[in-house]
Amino acid sequence: MSDSRLSVLRDEIDSLNQDLLVLLQRRAELVLEIAKIKRAQGLDGYDPEREFEMLQGLMAAVTGAFEQAQVKEIFRSIFRASVDIQDRERRRSLRVLRRDLVPEGGIRVGDVAIGAGRPVLIAGPCAVETPEQMEEIASALARLPVAKVLRAGAFKPRTSPHAFQGLREEGLKLLREAADRHGLVTVTEVLDTSTLDVVAAHTDMLQIGARNMYNTELLKAVGRVGKPVLLKRGFMATIEELLLSAEYILCSGSDAVVLCERGIRTFEPATRNTLDIAAVPLLKGETSLPVIVDLSHALGRRDIVLPCARAALAAGADGLMIEVHPRPDEALSDGFQQLDLASFAVLVEALGFGVGKPRAEVEIGRE
Amino acid sequence: MSDSRLSVLRDEIDSLNQDLLVLLQRRAELVLEIAKIKRAQGLDGYDPEREFEMLQGLMAAVTGAFEQAQVKEIFRSIFRASVDIQDRERRRSLRVLRRDLVPEGGIRVGDVAIGAGRPVLIAGPCAVETPEQMEEIASALARLPVAKVLRAGAFKPRTSPHAFQGLREEGLKLLREAADRHGLVTVTEVLDTSTLDVVAAHTDMLQIGARNMYNTELLKAVGRVGKPVLLKRGFMATIEELLLSAEYILCSGSDAVVLCERGIRTFEPATRNTLDIAAVPLLKGETSLPVIVDLSHALGRRDIVLPCARAALAAGADGLMIEVHPRPDEALSDGFQQLDLASFAVLVEALGFGVGKPRAEVEIGRE
Amino acid sequence: MSDSRLSVLRDEIDSLNQDLLVLLQRRAELVLEIAKIKRAQGLDGYDPEREFEMLQGLMAAVTGAFEQAQVKEIFRSIFRASVDIQDRERRRSLRVLRRDLVPEGGIRVGDVAIGAGRPVLIAGPCAVETPEQMEEIASALARLPVAKVLRAGAFKPRTSPHAFQGLREEGLKLLREAADRHGLVTVTEVLDTSTLDVVAAHTDMLQIGARNMYNTELLKAVGRVGKPVLLKRGFMATIEELLLSAEYILCSGSDAVVLCERGIRTFEPATRNTLDIAAVPLLKGETSLPVIVDLSHALGRRDIVLPCARAALAAGADGLMIEVHPRPDEALSDGFQQLDLASFAVLVEALGFGVGKPRAEVEIGRE
Amino acid sequence: MSDSRLSVLRDEIDSLNQDLLVLLQRRAELVLEIAKIKRAQGLDGYDPEREFEMLQGLMAAVTGAFEQAQVKEIFRSIFRASVDIQDRERRRSLRVLRRDLVPEGGIRVGDVAIGAGRPVLIAGPCAVETPEQMEEIASALARLPVAKVLRAGAFKPRTSPHAFQGLREEGLKLLREAADRHGLVTVTEVLDTSTLDVVAAHTDMLQIGARNMYNTELLKAVGRVGKPVLLKRGFMATIEELLLSAEYILCSGSDAVVLCERGIRTFEPATRNTLDIAAVPLLKGETSLPVIVDLSHALGRRDIVLPCARAALAAGADGLMIEVHPRPDEALSDGFQQLDLASFAVLVEALGFGVGKPRAEVEIGRE
Repeated sequence: MSDSRLSVLRDEIDSLNQDLLVLLQRRAELVLEIAKIKRAQGLDGYDPEREFEMLQGLMAAVTGAFEQAQVKEIFRSIFRASVDIQDRERRRSLRVLRRDLVPEGGIRVGDVAIGAGRPVLIAGPCAVETPEQMEEIASALARLPVAKVLRAGAFKPRTSPHAFQGLREEGLKLLREAADRHGLVTVTEVLDTSTLDVVAAHTDMLQIGARNMYNTELLKAVGRVGKPVLLKRGFMATIEELLLSAEYILCSGSDAVVLCERGIRTFEPATRNTLDIAAVPLLKGETSLPVIVDLSHALGRRDIVLPCARAALAAGADGLMIEVHPRPDEALSDGFQQLDLASFAVLVEALGFGVGKPRAEVEIGRE
Repeated sequence: MSDSRLSVLRDEIDSLNQDLLVLLQRRAELVLEIAKIKRAQGLDGYDPEREFEMLQGLMAAVTGAFEQAQVKEIFRSIFRASVDIQDRERRRSLRVLRRDLVPEGGIRVGDVAIGAGRPVLIAGPCAVETPEQMEEIASALARLPVAKVLRAGAFKPRTSPHAFQGLREEGLKLLREAADRHGLVTVTEVLDTSTLDVVAAHTDMLQIGARNMYNTELLKAVGRVGKPVLLKRGFMATIEELLLSAEYILCSGSDAVVLCERGIRTFEPATRNTLDIAAVPLLKGETSLPVIVDLSHALGRRDIVLPCARAALAAGADGLMIEVHPRPDEALSDGFQQLDLASFAVLVEALGFGVGKPRAEVEIGRE
Repeated sequence: MSDSRLSVLRDEIDSLNQDLLVLLQRRAELVLEIAKIKRAQGLDGYDPEREFEMLQGLMAAVTGAFEQAQVKEIFRSIFRASVDIQDRERRRSLRVLRRDLVPEGGIRVGDVAIGAGRPVLIAGPCAVETPEQMEEIASALARLPVAKVLRAGAFKPRTSPHAFQGLREEGLKLLREAADRHGLVTVTEVLDTSTLDVVAAHTDMLQIGARNMYNTELLKAVGRVGKPVLLKRGFMATIEELLLSAEYILCSGSDAVVLCERGIRTFEPATRNTLDIAAVPLLKGETSLPVIVDLSHALGRRDIVLPCARAALAAGADGLMIEVHPRPDEALSDGFQQLDLASFAVLVEALGFGVGKPRAEVEIGRE
Repeated sequence: MSDSRLSVLRDEIDSLNQDLLVLLQRRAELVLEIAKIKRAQGLDGYDPEREFEMLQGLMAAVTGAFEQAQVKEIFRSIFRASVDIQDRERRRSLRVLRRDLVPEGGIRVGDVAIGAGRPVLIAGPCAVETPEQMEEIASALARLPVAKVLRAGAFKPRTSPHAFQGLREEGLKLLREAADRHGLVTVTEVLDTSTLDVVAAHTDMLQIGARNMYNTELLKAVGRVGKPVLLKRGFMATIEELLLSAEYILCSGSDAVVLCERGIRTFEPATRNTLDIAAVPLLKGETSLPVIVDLSHALGRRDIVLPCARAALAAGADGLMIEVHPRPDEALSDGFQQLDLASFAVLVEALGFGVGKPRAEVEIGRE
């Protein structure tokens, strides 16, 4: 008997579900009509005060099996769904989520295409130090048959004001000259709106560092320059926050943004940060912007750069960023995580980026 | 014109809200009737397969402004609310959330009452080492006019198998004897079901350490002993998980559980863990079980024990746990975080727990 | 026999220790003399290349019980100690660690003294929204007999470019006017060097937000303004990094910096961030700068503001920052964490800051 | 002139370095001789009290450029180095670091070899639920031409005592029977020493779950059984702690331990945990034990299992663990992260593990 009773009750629930659906769709139509009127008046569709009043009206009427808390929860989900459909059009214009944002040929930095199918190598020292240093690195990089970008910091964001802060404009020139001698394109970090013009005048791509990912004024200013931008994830930033920082740039005029996973801060001390490898497919699932991985900052140690570089490419990364220095032990900053030129050559060979026999098994950075 | 139109639309929405409410309450009644039938058949009310079928029926019927995704979200919130009301009775019996769990006089450990209004001091060395060590500490503790419990580890959960593992049964006896000589009650950690009997035979209160907070078999076994339990939060555990671990003990027969915040693992290296001070009022808002704070493990350094002890009491903690050792620099484990007896005496004075002039401003552990 | 042999061996070790000490002290003298010569030549004393050469010389000579790894470690500690003594003078000038940095009367913001012994209350809405909103809050704050600062954001650093970004210059004026009408001093956030002048023209104290703690260009620019600065800890910044960010400001011309703990990002979801209560005594142990606690951002919920405020004061905080709004449910940002005026009045009473009966036990923000 | 003076000073330092080296090596000899005598007396070589005395002797003698703090630091590094050489022999026997621990053919679980060069697939449902469920999964797994292990939980470690706890012994039998019908080997979790015997009687490999990684009593008991063990990293455990937990098992009699990275707890909400990909090469650099990656628990979502599986293999993992269920939406636990059989088939094809055309580009789990 109870089974047939169960069956009757379930049928009634099914029928109620359909009635609820009809009312909900009618309600949705009304919401959209209201939103249209308000838009015509230049008003924002979202009105928390109105929601508050509606909830009060409902709470006053609650009697029965659902208590106020449950009714509130259900209507909040109806309100959310209503905001969703109002936002639908706006969301369609949330640029960072658009699948057609990046052209077929990827994002161009001079003759280098990022996100066009073949991985790109972004390499260079932590900081520009001397003409000789830059020459050694640029000439080594130029020889590689892979698409590459020369990177080096001229304005360095250091934790302490007493640490080496970079050669500033002089450093920008050394980077430019070394790149030009070898036909390379460049990327370097911009720290502030006040130095944006001078940095933009000397480099092909502008980098926003992890410490500046939330610096919205800088994001907007960089977007207005019109040059491609390399946007690094803050070491304390969620993936969603990274996408919204990219949105700032995209909304300011530039569509040429490359995202960079560079490790997040966790409790694990074995690496400088924890490389969040899942961020690569997650970002690529959300946006059409290219995604690269900065292995040097993520790991902070040389000996596992190779397997982690392989993992990044296997996860779908469009490129790798690796710090390299002629004499890491003498570097003015971050020496412990920069590869020397010999190890770098071994690495690019092992990754199949090099000139010689591909993917040899080698050990890098182990003492 | 548009304003009057707005007004008409809003009235219609208000009316629709009420219609929705009626349907929802009818639906809730049906859900409760079904649950009753199923309970009579010995079945669990929750039926994900049935939810899945209903969603499929609804998805097939979706046309209009709300798309499938929104309809799904709204009905999921209806399903959740339906589970809520079925669970209501069961939740009322979720013991850890019951406000009447702990008697007026708090949880008794011998003649010590925890959670009865006056803060309790739980102190002693990290590990039982020698009779002399235990005697020195027990006699110092006994002199304090505050309610107190003598703590010391006999079975030590060490990260490495080659580290000092505790004196085991011999340690239990030394702890018991020192406490008995000075009329103190004791707490000590139990590591495993296989040694539970011997530990329970020698101590007044059983401690579940942070590493064992998720060890559900041990939680159940400890609950069956019937002695009061001190349950430490895992250093990777959320507050909700701590409450659910307490629920394991409560459901196994013991209502005498004291919760202990002891710091969580974060990126900040200045302290061994990060003392989550907000956990104290959060836990006390959820449960009537007493909440204490283990300052030694939370901080891992002596110099800030006093201000953090004051903060813990100000936040509402029912007690403090502090490691103290006659000669911390010679301790077989965790020497760096144990106070010596002189500093301990200064601390208890400064907290107003001592025999002399109260709340003096002193510096502890600074070298 | 072995005991007497042990004794002989130990005596020889004691004697060797003294010989090592003599050589080490002679070595230290030489290091200081070299540093002096280099300073006269305008060179940095620290020379990693020279260290590298010395290590190579030593490695070549290693035979015996200590292997290269151990010798390297010992000499690295000698090198570190040598850098230490060279840095000693420089460190003595690391401004943030100077104990005499803040005058007896604390840091002055108009007639308000922060760090002068009595706790200060910094309160106001997340964002300036309307003249009425500011008037309500300012008049409520003005009535309190405690030292207080009116806070409100005009330039808002929002994660999404589509979220409310603040009233900008208009907001600065509303804040200023509301404060002036009630004789209050103000603090508001500055986001960028390009808007620093306009912000500084309208406020008594400049706030650097958590997202900008690493923005060294902004830190330097703010330091040059000469107004007192409220520096918030980044939500994934270590305590040491916060001190070094303060050093940037101090080195740029301002000594009036107030540090603010506002919670760090962890895995615990019950609070928006985890209030790192130990940061208060740790910071106060390192620097003489005042330290306040922002409870609203640390907790992200109203119901535990009171016990955590008590904890902050008990831990030694020089002040509290709390968000308050006439109608939090209608706030344009962060409504869920702002107190309404009635709850705020209850809170300040309970903390003993209010006009009525002190420290009543009340519950705030619980629904 | 100053340059020649510099040169003289540097020569003197070089000479002092050599003198220091001679004294240090003589000191090391004495330390080893003392340790030998103490070992003969059954004593531990490490003597913190003696170190304390030596430091006191040195501190009393400090005058000159190095202050007490520096001298203390240098001598502590000498003490550490001295402990190092005493430990050298013991460390050589730290089993987990031995390179010869695992035989050429890897660790055998029946006819499956883990760590022998070809990746192994460990798959199955979160929990054993019904005979039909196990049959469907076992038959699907059996068809794959890759080395594989059938996994399923019979004893489930659930956060709440009211959640499904597993079929216990009945579940063990269903797992065994399904595996036997299809010639598969099995792994299942053991929760406690009290149920170890019954679990060991029914399975080929014993799993220690993340919640039990610090459960040293269980680790020791499992090591004594003699069956291969799959040891999962705790979700807030460091890599070093994982190795030391393995050491517990190795020291109790079993050398057949497979390590499993399964994600760590961080602030990022997009994945259930954060897959620490660097842990794979770091662990393989430290130990010869095989290392696998549990993608289901690390990610907690299906849509990025494929790229992360590729990343794990590229980083050097010896195998993958993936949860699969005939009808994930009806699963009694963790349904949201289990793949259905069709998606699983696509995944193994795409990884080149399947029967059909290898490494097709497919999307899994996207709705």
